Amino acid sequence: MDYETPQFFRVMQYAARAERDVVDMVSGNPDWEPPAALREGLAEYADGEVSDFQYPPSVGLTPLRDEIAERRGVDRSRVLVTNGAGEANHLAMTSALDRGEGDEVIMTDPVYPYYAGRANLLNAESTYVPVDETGQVDPAAVREATTDDTAAIVVNSPNNPTGAVYPPETIESLVEIAEDHDAVLVSDEVYDHFDYTGDFESALATDSDHVVATNSFSKSMAITGFRVGYAVFPDEDGPLGELVERARTRHMIQNVAGSRPAQYAVLRALRETPPEYYERSRERLRERIDRFTDALDAAGAEYTTPGGSFYVMARFDGFPGTMENVERLIDEAGVAGMPGEAFGESRADWLRFALVTPRVDEAAERLADYLG
Amino acid sequence: MDYETPQFFRVMQYAARAERDVVDMVSGNPDWEPPAALREGLAEYADGEVSDFQYPPSVGLTPLRDEIAERRGVDRSRVLVTNGAGEANHLAMTSALDRGEGDEVIMTDPVYPYYAGRANLLNAESTYVPVDETGQVDPAAVREATTDDTAAIVVNSPNNPTGAVYPPETIESLVEIAEDHDAVLVSDEVYDHFDYTGDFESALATDSDHVVATNSFSKSMAITGFRVGYAVFPDEDGPLGELVERARTRHMIQNVAGSRPAQYAVLRALRETPPEYYERSRERLRERIDRFTDALDAAGAEYTTPGGSFYVMARFDGFPGTMENVERLIDEAGVAGMPGEAFGESRADWLRFALVTPRVDEAAERLADYLG
Repeated sequence: MDYETPQFFRVMQYAARAERDVVDMVSGNPDWEPPAALREGLAEYADGEVSDFQYPPSVGLTPLRDEIAERRGVDRSRVLVTNGAGEANHLAMTSALDRGEGDEVIMTDPVYPYYAGRANLLNAESTYVPVDETGQVDPAAVREATTDDTAAIVVNSPNNPTGAVYPPETIESLVEIAEDHDAVLVSDEVYDHFDYTGDFESALATDSDHVVATNSFSKSMAITGFRVGYAVFPDEDGPLGELVERARTRHMIQNVAGSRPAQYAVLRALRETPPEYYERSRERLRERIDRFTDALDAAGAEYTTPGGSFYVMARFDGFPGTMENVERLIDEAGVAGMPGEAFGESRADWLRFALVTPRVDEAAERLADYLG
Repeated sequence: MDYETPQFFRVMQYAARAERDVVDMVSGNPDWEPPAALREGLAEYADGEVSDFQYPPSVGLTPLRDEIAERRGVDRSRVLVTNGAGEANHLAMTSALDRGEGDEVIMTDPVYPYYAGRANLLNAESTYVPVDETGQVDPAAVREATTDDTAAIVVNSPNNPTGAVYPPETIESLVEIAEDHDAVLVSDEVYDHFDYTGDFESALATDSDHVVATNSFSKSMAITGFRVGYAVFPDEDGPLGELVERARTRHMIQNVAGSRPAQYAVLRALRETPPEYYERSRERLRERIDRFTDALDAAGAEYTTPGGSFYVMARFDGFPGTMENVERLIDEAGVAGMPGEAFGESRADWLRFALVTPRVDEAAERLADYLG
């Protein structure tokens, strides 16, 4: 599998060019309103001082780092604001690899394709640990895969694409494995606001010097195009203090700084958005999950009910999750999903559907009509 | 010289913490109004569709790439919109190095510190070619320094920090050298709107397959904090077509995409801003250069009159351009500049002053009082 160019854009382009109406369930682009304070913040910024249009600090606007640090219960020095979680994960992985203590990256299968593509680009040794049928990772399997050459273990919970939420004990075990092998657990928590199990706990709760937690406002505030994310690194005075130093340097060299209008608007939204906004988003998704999985039941499909995030993986008999089949579904059924093979070998028979459209019933009906 | 963490932020922070009034001439942050259409574009965006808040294409908004391509006279496929010129230069240099045809990067001395820091981060072999007293680079010296191991030659005209504008013959010679050694000329042209000589010509005019031209809207639109830049790569069907492919992949892996509100506002400003806006900016700078250099004359300082960009390098007898002296100037004279040593060895005796303040007379008087 070639992970170097993630397939999302290819499928989206194919769907956009289709001559028929297509329900878009490809990308993780939320279709709901961002917080009101976000729009207000951006409008306010547009009318602001010239000096506010110039470089923010490379590490991010100070009050934004403060807000993040306070919420995460960490010192501000550990927070680096990035160009979305994509850059946060990139900096976490490069910093771990640049220590020179190993060049192996452990990931799960299925894997979020950007992790795999990044490991390839960075010439890392990639090792995949298959998850179980429900999407849960077995820490014993990770421990068995981990070697002295392991630089990082990269996990994502709530998970894209499986929807699994790892229980705190799993995260604690993974942290222990990272500690035992002097490796870094990169915990991508971008779906933390979309946990329906109540079980989710950030890896930061382990208070380990071997954890980098990454996150973004892309999903929680429905602004994937703003590119505001962050990483929380281990204490810079601790044993892995070099990680945040390396990340700051690389961030400065590759991007100079992040985009200030977006950071400003996010800061305003972070301060003023009530918990109800996030609760409504969860409610909306819960309801869509119910409707979509009910319809999948009716269609006789196999599927996993997500405990978090907003993806449903489904399997239709005799219709494996290849790119060809995804294109066929677009043209012949009018539903665009992602091929399971884009996420690795273990879900090659499956298709991933992102519930970022109000038209989930319609999509499920079309799938049932075509494949049922 | 440690280039890994460019010194701009350090000096800016020192100046910000000073207990006295300081004229800030450190960074390249414009102090003038952005185009009216830029503010209008951002305000309009703030009120736009939810779908417009989601991922732009990784390579940049299509109409923005079209506007850029049309202005530069190239095919859209050659244009990659980046997180400022910083990322454009990063992608140009990494793409050249990743060809595996050499690991040497040739730069001038003085050098824009980010180029040098990037070469270090990328483990490239760095070779510096000193420029002459006026800031001009001698192509014969570059040819002598270039070897089969040269991956890229990185130049910047109009130049930061010298203010030199390379004549078209120089650029043509540099392109020839790159062609002869199968290397890439990275031509950073971010100050192209600040040419007072009338001599400036983009390296794209050579129509060579060995040129990557980088640029941004940071300086021309006075929006360094927006982070919208671009690179124009060689034709993807040409002999160095791999460059743009590599750059697209790396951009996607490290940043996913750029920030959409900023791209949207820049697009609007690019379409609607009349030439008079840019002419007024040049006029403002020309006038500041005159006033500042007149005052430097009066103070008995040596200096170079910039042909482009907005920096003046000055030398005061017995007061070399060290970080210590820069801090002394902040505390004791109330003027913040950049130490010449931050740009390499050849200008270690000099200080660089950015004319991004209306208080240039006051700054020059303070310098004259303190050092005259």
